[in-house]
Amino acid sequence: MGGVTQDRVARALLSYLAEPGDRRIGGLLRRHPAADVVAMIRSGTSGLETEDRYRVRLATARPEQHLERAAEVGGRLLVPGDLEWPRQLDDLGDAAPWALWVRGTLDLRLTALRSVAVVGARASTRYGERVASQLGTDLAESGWAVVSGGAFGIDKAAHLGALAARGLTCAVLACGVDLAYPPSHDALFARIAADGLLLSEVPPGSAPHRTRFLVRNRVIAALTRGTVVVEAALRSGSLSTAHEAERLGRPVLGVPGPVTSEQSRGVHRALRNGALLVTSAAEVVEAVGGIGVDLAPEPSGRVDPRDALDPLAARVLDAVPVQRPATLESVARTAGVTPAETSAALGLMELSGFVRCGPEGWALNRPAGRRSGAPG
Amino acid sequence: MGGVTQDRVARALLSYLAEPGDRRIGGLLRRHPAADVVAMIRSGTSGLETEDRYRVRLATARPEQHLERAAEVGGRLLVPGDLEWPRQLDDLGDAAPWALWVRGTLDLRLTALRSVAVVGARASTRYGERVASQLGTDLAESGWAVVSGGAFGIDKAAHLGALAARGLTCAVLACGVDLAYPPSHDALFARIAADGLLLSEVPPGSAPHRTRFLVRNRVIAALTRGTVVVEAALRSGSLSTAHEAERLGRPVLGVPGPVTSEQSRGVHRALRNGALLVTSAAEVVEAVGGIGVDLAPEPSGRVDPRDALDPLAARVLDAVPVQRPATLESVARTAGVTPAETSAALGLMELSGFVRCGPEGWALNRPAGRRSGAPG
Repeated sequence: MGGVTQDRVARALLSYLAEPGDRRIGGLLRRHPAADVVAMIRSGTSGLETEDRYRVRLATARPEQHLERAAEVGGRLLVPGDLEWPRQLDDLGDAAPWALWVRGTLDLRLTALRSVAVVGARASTRYGERVASQLGTDLAESGWAVVSGGAFGIDKAAHLGALAARGLTCAVLACGVDLAYPPSHDALFARIAADGLLLSEVPPGSAPHRTRFLVRNRVIAALTRGTVVVEAALRSGSLSTAHEAERLGRPVLGVPGPVTSEQSRGVHRALRNGALLVTSAAEVVEAVGGIGVDLAPEPSGRVDPRDALDPLAARVLDAVPVQRPATLESVARTAGVTPAETSAALGLMELSGFVRCGPEGWALNRPAGRRSGAPG
Repeated sequence: MGGVTQDRVARALLSYLAEPGDRRIGGLLRRHPAADVVAMIRSGTSGLETEDRYRVRLATARPEQHLERAAEVGGRLLVPGDLEWPRQLDDLGDAAPWALWVRGTLDLRLTALRSVAVVGARASTRYGERVASQLGTDLAESGWAVVSGGAFGIDKAAHLGALAARGLTCAVLACGVDLAYPPSHDALFARIAADGLLLSEVPPGSAPHRTRFLVRNRVIAALTRGTVVVEAALRSGSLSTAHEAERLGRPVLGVPGPVTSEQSRGVHRALRNGALLVTSAAEVVEAVGGIGVDLAPEPSGRVDPRDALDPLAARVLDAVPVQRPATLESVARTAGVTPAETSAALGLMELSGFVRCGPEGWALNRPAGRRSGAPG
C-alpha cells in the first residue's frame, strides 16, 4: 500500500471537500496531481465555478485525523496507483472515485475481480430476503464475492447469505466506514469488516445524506461484473444501480417474483426492458462469468419413461385400459392402429415393463410413483 | 353454415378414422375432396402407408350419428369453407384441423379474431390461479376472448375469470364436446357452452387420450393471437402450446412467479429463452394487439416531489436537519455548497413548501405521507 504520501493526504482531503462523483474534481485530477488540485482550491485558482463550495469546507478539513481514525478501526485509504486499486472503476470516467476508504483485510482488487452486485429493496418481502440470502450463499460457494449496500432488506440478506457460507462480501457505504447506518447494522458491519470489506468514498465520521446513497450506487455497479436486482418497487433506489450497470455495459440481471407483489414490479419492468431473468446463482455466474467457463445447466424436469416411446407405441400404450385387461383388437381399435402394429408395439412394451399380457388380455403395469391421470 | 353436405359428412367420418393432426390425411385433403379421400380409404387405394389404421375404425364409424349427437347438445361441425371457419388454422399446414366440432352459439371466427391463449399447469398454486383468473377477467373487459384447455388449475381459473366478466371464453377439448373431462368440470363446460364455445377435433362420445391432449395444444396456439403461460413446471404440457405458438410465429408470453416455486420454473425457462415477460392483461394485449393500438402504460411509481429538484437544491435540502433548525452557514457546510448558493436554494424551496425559516434557523417541512428515513 505504501506510506502516507502527499498524494494520499491530498485525496483524503478532497474526499472531504467535494461530494463523491464530482465530475469537476474528477476532470481536474486527470490533468493535475491531487496535491496541485488542493493547492489550486486553497489559492482560489482552480478555475472551477464550484470552487467556493469546496472552500466552505476547507476550514474544518482534517485529513490526517481521518487517516488516523481509519487506522484505528482497521481501515486505510486506497488511491489510484495502489496495487489494490480496482481499475474497472476507471470505466466511470470523470465520475470515478479518486479515493476509497476501506475497512477489512482483504485485497479489494482481487475480491472485486470475481464479484457480483446483489441489490434490492429495503422494504423487502420474506421471499426476496430468502432469495437474496440463497444467492449470497451460492455465489460465495461458487467462489464469487457479493457487493451490495448496507441497507435493511435485500442488502442485508445478501451479505448474511455470503457470510454464512464463509464467503467474501463487500458493503459500499454512504457514510464513513467507522459508522453504522442504519445504526442497528452495527454488528453486521463489524462482521463484514472482519470477513469482508467495508468501502466508502467519504471520510470516517461522515454522515450519510440522501444524495450520497444514489452516487454510491455507481461504485457498486462499476466494481462488479454485473448487477442482480432481487426485489425493487417501481421507484426503488436499487434500480439506479441497475441503470448505472447498464450504462457501463455490465449485465443487468433480475430475479422475478409474484406479479401481485409491489416489491417485484420494478424488477419486472427492468426485465421487460432488456434485463436478463435469472433464477439461481448458477445462472447469474453464467451471465457475468467468463464465456464458456461458467455455463449453468439448462433446467429440466424428471424424465417420464413414456417420453422415450415412439409416437405409435405411445398411442398404443394410451389405448391399454387402466382398469381391466383388453383384447388386442380392442386396443387396436381404440388406438386407431392396425392389429399387426398393435401386436408388435405391445410385445416391445411388454419387454420394457410397460404392459403385461394375461389370460383376459393386455393390461397396464403401473410403476410406483408414475403420475396418475391424463392432462386436461 | 349450410346444410349437412357430403363434404361435411366425409370430414365427420375422417375425424373418427384418423387422429387429430394426422399430416398424411391433411396432405391428401389438400389435393382431393374429403369424400374422395374417404372413398380411397374404403377401397384401399389412398396409397398411404397408414391406411390400414384408418380401416380398423371403418367398421364402427357412424358419422351421421355423431352429427345428430352434436345437434342434441347444441353443437355443430365446422369445416373449411364455412364462413365461421377460422382461417388462421391454415398456418398449421398439413397438421391443420380438417373439421371442428363446436358447441355454443358464438361465431368461432369472430370470437377467435381477438383471442389470447391462457394456459398453464393443472397442478397450479393459488397464486397462479389468482393471476389466471384476473387475466381472464381483464382480457374479457378489454374485449378479448380467452382460449384454453379444460383442465384443472390455470385453464379453469382463466375460464372462470372471463365468465365472471361476462366475457367470451373457448375451451378446446381432447374429448368430444358432449363429454366432460375431468368429469367434475361438467358444470364449467355447460357454462362455457352457454356463454362461450367448446371445441374439439374428435367426434361426440370420443374419450380423451394422452396423445390427444398434446396434439390439441396446436389448435389453441393456432386459433389465438398469442399464448400466455401463467404457471408451468419444467415438463408441463402447457409448454407445448407455447412451443407451437413460437413455431407459428405467434408471440409467447409468460407470467413470472417466485423462483422458489416449481410451478413457475417452466415459465422462467421460457422467459430466459425469449418469451416476453408480462404482468398484466394490458401488457398481454399490447404484445398481441394491433401495433400502436393497444399500448400498455409504462408502470411508474408515485412521484416524489424531491425528484423535481435540481441537484444543488436536493443537496441543500438533504443538509437541512430533521430534528432541530440549523443556521444558513451550518446548512451550507453540511451540503458542501457556498452560503450564497444555499441561501438562494433555501429561498426557492421555502416558496415550494419544502423548508421554513424560523427564529432559530432553517427547518424541514415534513409533508404527510412522505417516506421517512434515508435509503441504506
